Amino acid sequence: MAHIQLPIAEELGREYPGILGPMTFRPETAAPLNELVNVLLRGESTLSRGEREMIATHVSWRNDCFFCQTIHGAVAAAQLGHDEALVQKVKTNWAEAEISPKLKALLRIAGKVQLGGKNVTAEEVAAARDLGASDMEIHDTVLIAAVFCMCNRYVDGLNTWAPQDLGIYRERAAKIVEHGYTGVTEAAIATVHS
Amino acid sequence: MAHIQLPIAEELGREYPGILGPMTFRPETAAPLNELVNVLLRGESTLSRGEREMIATHVSWRNDCFFCQTIHGAVAAAQLGHDEALVQKVKTNWAEAEISPKLKALLRIAGKVQLGGKNVTAEEVAAARDLGASDMEIHDTVLIAAVFCMCNRYVDGLNTWAPQDLGIYRERAAKIVEHGYTGVTEAAIATVHS
Repeated sequence: MAHIQLPIAEELGREYPGILGPMTFRPETAAPLNELVNVLLRGESTLSRGEREMIATHVSWRNDCFFCQTIHGAVAAAQLGHDEALVQKVKTNWAEAEISPKLKALLRIAGKVQLGGKNVTAEEVAAARDLGASDMEIHDTVLIAAVFCMCNRYVDGLNTWAPQDLGIYRERAAKIVEHGYTGVTEAAIATVHS
Repeated sequence: MAHIQLPIAEELGREYPGILGPMTFRPETAAPLNELVNVLLRGESTLSRGEREMIATHVSWRNDCFFCQTIHGAVAAAQLGHDEALVQKVKTNWAEAEISPKLKALLRIAGKVQLGGKNVTAEEVAAARDLGASDMEIHDTVLIAAVFCMCNRYVDGLNTWAPQDLGIYRERAAKIVEHGYTGVTEAAIATVHS
């Protein structure tokens, strides 16, 4: 049971899962949160949407947040030709995954951010740059990792529930790919507040 | 030196300090970030602005982020009759500070969120509720703590610089109290991009 009373979604007979629960509870904070995630994960970038979702997924796995690692893993896979095995590998053991050396260098930085910002070293940043990472890509990697350290704490700090059926995440991921984070959340908010 | 090349503020002859550096680098993410912090720390709430700033300050101290704990400590003090000693006490040892039992219960929850969301227990939430905390206050405490786990990582993960002169933070806090987080950041962004 969540630590606070969240709105009930009629279609489910209970609260929306994961971050959608508190987002439907507090639309005033949901709006900028979704905007931030939309810009970082779906906005213009020289990193692909799949790459950015993999960074979010890896950080959420490091924070042991089942909901976030599963939904963002599903979105990542949906952007990567449904390669769920690749996403699983990146999540738990990116060093041996079939991804670019640049993305590995960025995942290393993201992992350090998860531990705490001061853990990122100048050497790790230089290594990413040597492999072709731009300042904007390094910036966005640090901020994506930081944003998911927030989202993971928001989801688990309020003890929200998470479905165990992976099919639910795949379906939801398809909606996110089509409508974005803001669109999907606004639909849920409209439902519970109508 | 910051890990990436940030815009130079002419008035300083170097980058803006702390989070303003990366915010002037990436205005697209700065806008929703500031909106989120504005709603949480300055929007309508049954927690006073001073109380909310103390939660932000305590979490930033726990994350050892000098810039964030100092600027939000200065904003908290500015909202609390310039009682810097009280803010210092809440930051490092809230259990013995002259604050309400309810705020202590909320600071306990915030500290658990800093460690990771799963550390918050139902007993701690029940204790806060018994002392008068509403679901909205518990929600906002969890989200403020989570947001500062993000901001602290953003500031330190990019290795931004922080002034050592406390007078600079007091001056800046006065501007934040008057114009809000969005206003102060937009002024800086306008300067470096003009």
